[in-house]
Amino acid sequence: SVNPDLASERQTASFCVEKLTALLDGGAEQTRIRRAVVEAIQSDPVFSRENQYFQTQNERYEAAVMKAVHLQKKMHEMGWTENGPEYKYIYRALSGDVAFLLHRVFMRSISVLGSDKQIAKWIPLATQHQLIGSYAQTELGHGTYLQGLETTAVFDITTQEFILNTPKISAMKWWPGDMGRSATHTVVFAQLYIHGKCYGIHPFIVQIRSLQDHSLCPGITAGDIGPKMNFEHIDNGYLMLKNVRVPRDNMLSKFCEVRPDGTYVRQGSQKINYFTMTTVRISLISDEVLTPLMKACTIAIRYSAVRRQSKLKPGEQEAKILDYQTQQEKLLPQLAAVYAFHFINDYLQELFNRGYREIQRKNFDMLPELHALSSGFKAVITHHCTAAVEICLRACGGHGYSLLSGLPSLYTKILASCIYEGENTILLLQTARFLIKCFMAASTGQPVPPSVTYLAAEKPGKCPAKNKLDFLHPDIYTEAYQHVAVRLISSTATKLQDLIQSGVKKYDAWNQCTVQLVQAAKAHCHYITVKNFAETVETLETKAGIQRIMKHLCDLFALHGIFSNTGAFLHDGYISAAQMDMVTASYLDLLAVIRKDAVPLVDAFDFTDESLNSALGSYDGQVYQRLYEWAQKSPTNKMSPAYERYLKPLLHNTLSKL
Amino acid sequence: SVNPDLASERQTASFCVEKLTALLDGGAEQTRIRRAVVEAIQSDPVFSRENQYFQTQNERYEAAVMKAVHLQKKMHEMGWTENGPEYKYIYRALSGDVAFLLHRVFMRSISVLGSDKQIAKWIPLATQHQLIGSYAQTELGHGTYLQGLETTAVFDITTQEFILNTPKISAMKWWPGDMGRSATHTVVFAQLYIHGKCYGIHPFIVQIRSLQDHSLCPGITAGDIGPKMNFEHIDNGYLMLKNVRVPRDNMLSKFCEVRPDGTYVRQGSQKINYFTMTTVRISLISDEVLTPLMKACTIAIRYSAVRRQSKLKPGEQEAKILDYQTQQEKLLPQLAAVYAFHFINDYLQELFNRGYREIQRKNFDMLPELHALSSGFKAVITHHCTAAVEICLRACGGHGYSLLSGLPSLYTKILASCIYEGENTILLLQTARFLIKCFMAASTGQPVPPSVTYLAAEKPGKCPAKNKLDFLHPDIYTEAYQHVAVRLISSTATKLQDLIQSGVKKYDAWNQCTVQLVQAAKAHCHYITVKNFAETVETLETKAGIQRIMKHLCDLFALHGIFSNTGAFLHDGYISAAQMDMVTASYLDLLAVIRKDAVPLVDAFDFTDESLNSALGSYDGQVYQRLYEWAQKSPTNKMSPAYERYLKPLLHNTLSKL
Repeated sequence: SVNPDLASERQTASFCVEKLTALLDGGAEQTRIRRAVVEAIQSDPVFSRENQYFQTQNERYEAAVMKAVHLQKKMHEMGWTENGPEYKYIYRALSGDVAFLLHRVFMRSISVLGSDKQIAKWIPLATQHQLIGSYAQTELGHGTYLQGLETTAVFDITTQEFILNTPKISAMKWWPGDMGRSATHTVVFAQLYIHGKCYGIHPFIVQIRSLQDHSLCPGITAGDIGPKMNFEHIDNGYLMLKNVRVPRDNMLSKFCEVRPDGTYVRQGSQKINYFTMTTVRISLISDEVLTPLMKACTIAIRYSAVRRQSKLKPGEQEAKILDYQTQQEKLLPQLAAVYAFHFINDYLQELFNRGYREIQRKNFDMLPELHALSSGFKAVITHHCTAAVEICLRACGGHGYSLLSGLPSLYTKILASCIYEGENTILLLQTARFLIKCFMAASTGQPVPPSVTYLAAEKPGKCPAKNKLDFLHPDIYTEAYQHVAVRLISSTATKLQDLIQSGVKKYDAWNQCTVQLVQAAKAHCHYITVKNFAETVETLETKAGIQRIMKHLCDLFALHGIFSNTGAFLHDGYISAAQMDMVTASYLDLLAVIRKDAVPLVDAFDFTDESLNSALGSYDGQVYQRLYEWAQKSPTNKMSPAYERYLKPLLHNTLSKL
Repeated sequence: SVNPDLASERQTASFCVEKLTALLDGGAEQTRIRRAVVEAIQSDPVFSRENQYFQTQNERYEAAVMKAVHLQKKMHEMGWTENGPEYKYIYRALSGDVAFLLHRVFMRSISVLGSDKQIAKWIPLATQHQLIGSYAQTELGHGTYLQGLETTAVFDITTQEFILNTPKISAMKWWPGDMGRSATHTVVFAQLYIHGKCYGIHPFIVQIRSLQDHSLCPGITAGDIGPKMNFEHIDNGYLMLKNVRVPRDNMLSKFCEVRPDGTYVRQGSQKINYFTMTTVRISLISDEVLTPLMKACTIAIRYSAVRRQSKLKPGEQEAKILDYQTQQEKLLPQLAAVYAFHFINDYLQELFNRGYREIQRKNFDMLPELHALSSGFKAVITHHCTAAVEICLRACGGHGYSLLSGLPSLYTKILASCIYEGENTILLLQTARFLIKCFMAASTGQPVPPSVTYLAAEKPGKCPAKNKLDFLHPDIYTEAYQHVAVRLISSTATKLQDLIQSGVKKYDAWNQCTVQLVQAAKAHCHYITVKNFAETVETLETKAGIQRIMKHLCDLFALHGIFSNTGAFLHDGYISAAQMDMVTASYLDLLAVIRKDAVPLVDAFDFTDESLNSALGSYDGQVYQRLYEWAQKSPTNKMSPAYERYLKPLLHNTLSKL
């Protein structure tokens, strides 16, 4: 039985939920395939996540290994392949709760960096899981700055081997997933030395555990790095190498080779490799960032339609907390952000597909733009969505703080996305470097990539809005965002030039501008997101209310961004104080409009109760019943030795006194 | 041996660290007492937190009970008393990792709400821990809105008992600490019924577990609510009551009594009780909010002085990450916030002490102001410091994400402070209600409490700053903050009045203004914090560099607040765009100045390595060594059944192929 407070929310939807689901999936056929995968996975008890919140790190790891092994069978049984249409839904259906994810990175690195001979040798073994691979790049003392890695690989011409070493503790490999306990092999990135000369970082396949009994190989010290904020199911590991010898053939040699006589040879273009690293940043957006935020919105909004607190009107029943303006202001902008980033993700995917086709034709012109976009959007979207999940968690009060709500684990997991695959601040500065370069080029009339042509078309002007309804015109707010992006990029470029001209060294000047460069890069991404959302709305079908509700969300996303960052728009008077008051009025009006469709909008994400794994977010809204049922299953409700040991001696003397 | 990168930071301190420590402690004698307590606690192995990050929820609970019982002995042994000067340092030295905290709340509620006879009966038993008390107020479906509680207590005149019941699932008590597994007694808040008439919420002492064998009493269903984001050491519990009878004497009856014939009698003034609830919000600031942020700053800043990444200048060694402007911009404002809130906490403590003296003289005039200040500052400080701890965590990259850094547990614990003792948004709206009332009074010339007299003295004007150095004058920025607070309060008051005059019902109008009311309440608290910081700096001794460094931090706190919220200051042109550029310049200059003293500033917090419990934050800065040592101790480095069960069958066929 569905909680009547939730049921009533569904009766007044202004649009067709099923049509919106299909839009998000990319068509009704995709929805059908996704549901079939979800059904197959969730009906299989091996994949159950029922006790997840009660498990220790060891139990989580063991379950993840079990699931990974079982998944191989399941895929075979279902006829799913890694290239099939079902594949992208499997990970989502499992909520990522599975081991051997780095095994795929191991395979990809061999495919991309290995010679044909190496691919022929290793990929079939890896495909059949006859070894378990990992990817050992990050070190205790070295992350984003790859040139700083300290692990060494010295070529020994007499034995035709590389000798790998961890020269000091900061050079220990640290964090590689699947390496702490599972992996038998890994790709180790190390500084290559031949005849005492350093040739920089290269990848080497290294066996770390015996295939016979899984014991560590000679010279290998490895283990698990211990507890983390999340990812308990993954054995992130450490690795020390002491005179570990691998044959010459184990250096991945598509681009660089060491000949038997010690000659070092570079071959081909590595640019395709940079492109691969760039696409990883885009590929994580959907599974690791948007899906968790969709779940958090579903949980928090359903709960807010069921939870009642205080009286809004005297004499009436306590009000649904979703009816409070402050609660709407917390949750609805996050919902709008989901859609904004969903559409920008589509845009980026398409752009990268186009880039890939160009690169295959040996045209690398798009690379700088793709690199800048992937860096900037990875940072902006992970940051925004992490903050949004936290807002959802806090908006559920005490119950949001219980692991059983599902929100804490969504938060602690999405948080990592701000750090891995490039720390966000560093990524934004890479985007900023591209923007400054393009701005300089544009201002001297040189051609620039499509996404930054707007930098050449700087118009000073003022926002033409005359009343609050004008701020519901996409042209009005999109131009405001564009104006701010241009202003921040150009003013920071000017500051940078002024500093350099005043005699400050180039690198010092750059460092002194970085806080503002980060702001400029964010403004660029924010502008493109708003513009893309508005353009996408134009293309949507007008039937079934889809376009109308998406238009509302687009407006909300844009106005929320202005409302939360008024200074950027007020600074040079592009938006006046009176206009900003109109923005505020339109923004607050929109909250009340979208509130009516809030529950149908999260229903459209189409999560099953199993995949939400939340006592607050279930489709039926039976929150209190579920919290109570789950709590009773907690291991903390088993007998504890604390009573006999500590409490009984304390209380033994009381009976006579009471 | 201290990491040389950290040692060098200490050699150039511009001030005397020991003197700053004494200032924070409230005098050198307090420092001495604190260190003695810390030494006594940390040298006792029972209080060790060494394995904390590896323990399950059950293990954490058992350790906390053990520590609570041992603490009684320890206090006796050391001659420490609950009223002695050492008491406030004990909790800090234990890092709050101890059970029976609700036992103190149980005792306080009896002392405040109980009759002399009840106090004489229960307090001695509780003091000697011959029963374990809890405090059962919050229900599954009811938190901040106490009138909504559903638990019932019906007076049975024939037996002279109250019959307590949980009428439905949403009425189940939920969250009370120490209740899930430990408590024998609790104070239950329930709707009192006599002859079918409801008299509202009243407190009843209820025994829930046997003193003989700790089994649940008849009619009681109770247990642990399961895993949470933190507080694993506390058995937050649930409680259902089914026809549980307690004697008439068990209703706490200082203010309300039910006579044997069923007559309901009110007596005395309950105002002192409201005052008590208000002081709890202030009392948590120091231990639960400032101490964790001080720890997070210590960890993140020491790590940033040791961690090196990328090259700032070509040809040089990789740079300390603390030398990057973006890293300074993350961490140093948080450090400034610690000091700002430390001083405002002193101000509030003093104000509350004065309030208490007035109330004892039956003068309740200060109550509304104290309520507004405690609500607003609880919300603003917990929110700000929670965000600050998260920034510290993220600023440490991957290692910040490891539990061994200590940062995840600091974050997940401080986060709860935004929810408990009044959800922050609701508290801010209570402050806003007070501000609107005072603004209306002030604008008609009526007297208002001291902290809001500035509302009467509204000056339009413009900021008089002429260059970036002017923004280092406290008068300049304090007035800017005041101007913004007045503007937000007055404009929201106007909006509210306009809505009501246009025919919108009062409660609807209020709801439509709440987003802006929250902003106004925050601006008020921010202004008072800046003003108090600036005034405090004036009073500090000029010797030993203390006043100078505090002045820098005060400037940084104030300018960071403007830089992060430029729109509020630009809106009506009080600060012009050109002036805002000066603010930015001064703010960024300050970062470089304070960066030089960053490590000494956190050293002054004087945390021992044991109390930080962080692989990143230790005094010696031997980060990598400690991470490696700790990781090896993780239970995830014990044998796992996963190899035999899942991996061996997978790998069995490989040997022949490699």
